[in-house]
Amino acid sequence: MSHVLVTRREGAVLVLSHHNVAARNALSPEFYTAVGHALREAADDPSVGAIVLTGAGGHFCAGGDLRQLVKRRELPVEARRARLEDLHDLIRSVRDCPKPVIAAVEGAAAGAGLSLAMACDMLVAAKDAVFTVAYVKVGLTPDGGATAFLAEFVSRQVLTELCLTGAPLSGERMHALGAVNRLVESGAALSHAITLATEISKGPQKAMGRIKHLCRLTMHHSLEEQLELEAQSMVDAMGSDESMEGIQAFLNKRAPNYIQLREGSE
Amino acid sequence: MSHVLVTRREGAVLVLSHHNVAARNALSPEFYTAVGHALREAADDPSVGAIVLTGAGGHFCAGGDLRQLVKRRELPVEARRARLEDLHDLIRSVRDCPKPVIAAVEGAAAGAGLSLAMACDMLVAAKDAVFTVAYVKVGLTPDGGATAFLAEFVSRQVLTELCLTGAPLSGERMHALGAVNRLVESGAALSHAITLATEISKGPQKAMGRIKHLCRLTMHHSLEEQLELEAQSMVDAMGSDESMEGIQAFLNKRAPNYIQLREGSE
Amino acid sequence: MSHVLVTRREGAVLVLSHHNVAARNALSPEFYTAVGHALREAADDPSVGAIVLTGAGGHFCAGGDLRQLVKRRELPVEARRARLEDLHDLIRSVRDCPKPVIAAVEGAAAGAGLSLAMACDMLVAAKDAVFTVAYVKVGLTPDGGATAFLAEFVSRQVLTELCLTGAPLSGERMHALGAVNRLVESGAALSHAITLATEISKGPQKAMGRIKHLCRLTMHHSLEEQLELEAQSMVDAMGSDESMEGIQAFLNKRAPNYIQLREGSE
Repeated sequence: MSHVLVTRREGAVLVLSHHNVAARNALSPEFYTAVGHALREAADDPSVGAIVLTGAGGHFCAGGDLRQLVKRRELPVEARRARLEDLHDLIRSVRDCPKPVIAAVEGAAAGAGLSLAMACDMLVAAKDAVFTVAYVKVGLTPDGGATAFLAEFVSRQVLTELCLTGAPLSGERMHALGAVNRLVESGAALSHAITLATEISKGPQKAMGRIKHLCRLTMHHSLEEQLELEAQSMVDAMGSDESMEGIQAFLNKRAPNYIQLREGSE
Repeated sequence: MSHVLVTRREGAVLVLSHHNVAARNALSPEFYTAVGHALREAADDPSVGAIVLTGAGGHFCAGGDLRQLVKRRELPVEARRARLEDLHDLIRSVRDCPKPVIAAVEGAAAGAGLSLAMACDMLVAAKDAVFTVAYVKVGLTPDGGATAFLAEFVSRQVLTELCLTGAPLSGERMHALGAVNRLVESGAALSHAITLATEISKGPQKAMGRIKHLCRLTMHHSLEEQLELEAQSMVDAMGSDESMEGIQAFLNKRAPNYIQLREGSE
Repeated sequence: MSHVLVTRREGAVLVLSHHNVAARNALSPEFYTAVGHALREAADDPSVGAIVLTGAGGHFCAGGDLRQLVKRRELPVEARRARLEDLHDLIRSVRDCPKPVIAAVEGAAAGAGLSLAMACDMLVAAKDAVFTVAYVKVGLTPDGGATAFLAEFVSRQVLTELCLTGAPLSGERMHALGAVNRLVESGAALSHAITLATEISKGPQKAMGRIKHLCRLTMHHSLEEQLELEAQSMVDAMGSDESMEGIQAFLNKRAPNYIQLREGSE
């Protein structure tokens, strides 16, 4: 197990906790590798229904490590680029994981830490959490998909201001802007995220994987493209054990039991 | 005339009312055919200025008929797909109709019923209307453009939650999220929709058809593509009888009369 | 200097003020040329950190000049199109200018005046400013990117209503919809815009140019395309004098001084 990532199970929920507390969970190559590995394992483990990603010690993630960045400017362009791809591969891992990934954010989610929080499928945040597109303050530009993820819910005018000034957004403001699924008291983000993840983990696993995929792609699709993707997904789902169970349960006025289907195969 | 679709005129407004009340207006092949037919007729009828789509008996539409869906899983994949295309052709008919289509929603707009409501150009909803992306509850995935239409006004985080949980959204919440043009008291959606449609039906018909098209395509266009489409549309509009009437009326400080232009040809 | 555009400097801020007061700053070929010219000069002048665009006499811009439009319908289609391209080139100039452009809006921002205000990177508006997609009232259709820019922050349902009815939006409503960076008292838009521009002008100029570009393109990109653009931009920024200054200042707990870097070359 990695030193910077502590993993534990809470029933069907896998909790991934960043432990680089002295640096407010600043990012590191070790963290990228460990999270990518954990997400790939979770994808293949039918007992994992949902994943929570959080940071230990009261901060989600302070972003890149500036002491490392100072050294990186001495590297050739190709080497700088390779280090960036490690971050971007992490963002892709969150996107491509077929299980829902929920960010639980306390304290700082700054720079690439903000990107990582916004890359998740859902967001639970403490009221006093602080999201910042901090890059401009040190003469840098956003990475990790920060501009892509923020543009999903703020106007271009606000996006531009946030990225040009690095002004902080509280959890409360992020909730008002529509990007926070559960706004909670300071210190309560992880427990609420686990509750939400537990509830979701009871759903139909294959259908939920398809739904995550649909929700990720729709903002980049024309209506025609999305209708096609929805149709392919629905045709598959119609023949699944999950919909058999779901529809029978509905018609018989009982609760569906999707958990029993997890170990078997269609 | 179809048994499941009652059509009537209110001045220049065509009202289409779904009548499958015992099943809370669950969808049927007969309904798809009847609405598609009515929209094509309305497109060619200069006396129709706008269209209102609603459901009788206190519910907009409960979505797909689960008893039919149970049978459909026995069908070969191609046959399942064909039935889905009937729904998707209905969504395309609403999009492609050159007249504005306004949904008047009371009670349930569930599953493909939500998709149909959101496919319309404008939305009038009762405060206590209930919108749900219900599919996941029975092990299915969204269709009818549900994910495309919701992504136009909610964040990806909220979209994912709605689709993974099937949680209900009230008319009031949909209004707060920005997708409802008129939020009204329970029972008043149809009358307010007709009022809005009547007002709009007085506008310049050809320009309004172009405007609907611009509003539909912009979210899938780059700025350059949309500038091109706006320019083509404007160059046409500049030479139209409608703009002649509109500009002359403005300069002469009188109200324009676009109705007189409807029967003639440019 | 043009008669319809008054330019002045406020420190590092270039203020462009439309002076066609008798016509509530209706657009003219002279204005297009003058703004395009001023923005190109500002792009090349390292002493300009940010630009404010406003209208004199209490109105931002009333849009196209209807008396001119009446004559334009007599022109061949190619000539009509050429005049539209002049407007669209102005919109492109605002987009392509590497310095942030902030609109300061009092009174009317109607038709192409609304397009021009929304084309800017940020927006400062008086509470009682009035934004209207006025075209439909005179039988015309939107241009200048109006439909593209509004779709960035309103639902398709609201976009369609605004464009089909020409209904006015107050500065207050535009702020609630998320498109206004600073909502101010009537008469105070210009002074607040200059304050915001002055603050922003202290930032790292090259990084800010890249950030503006990222913020403009993200809504038209897939996540993969935007990650690529962010990576290219970050790799450049990592090697810049600006990030050297920014990171050193941060590690030494002092304020960065990006102004000193403006005259030099990397």
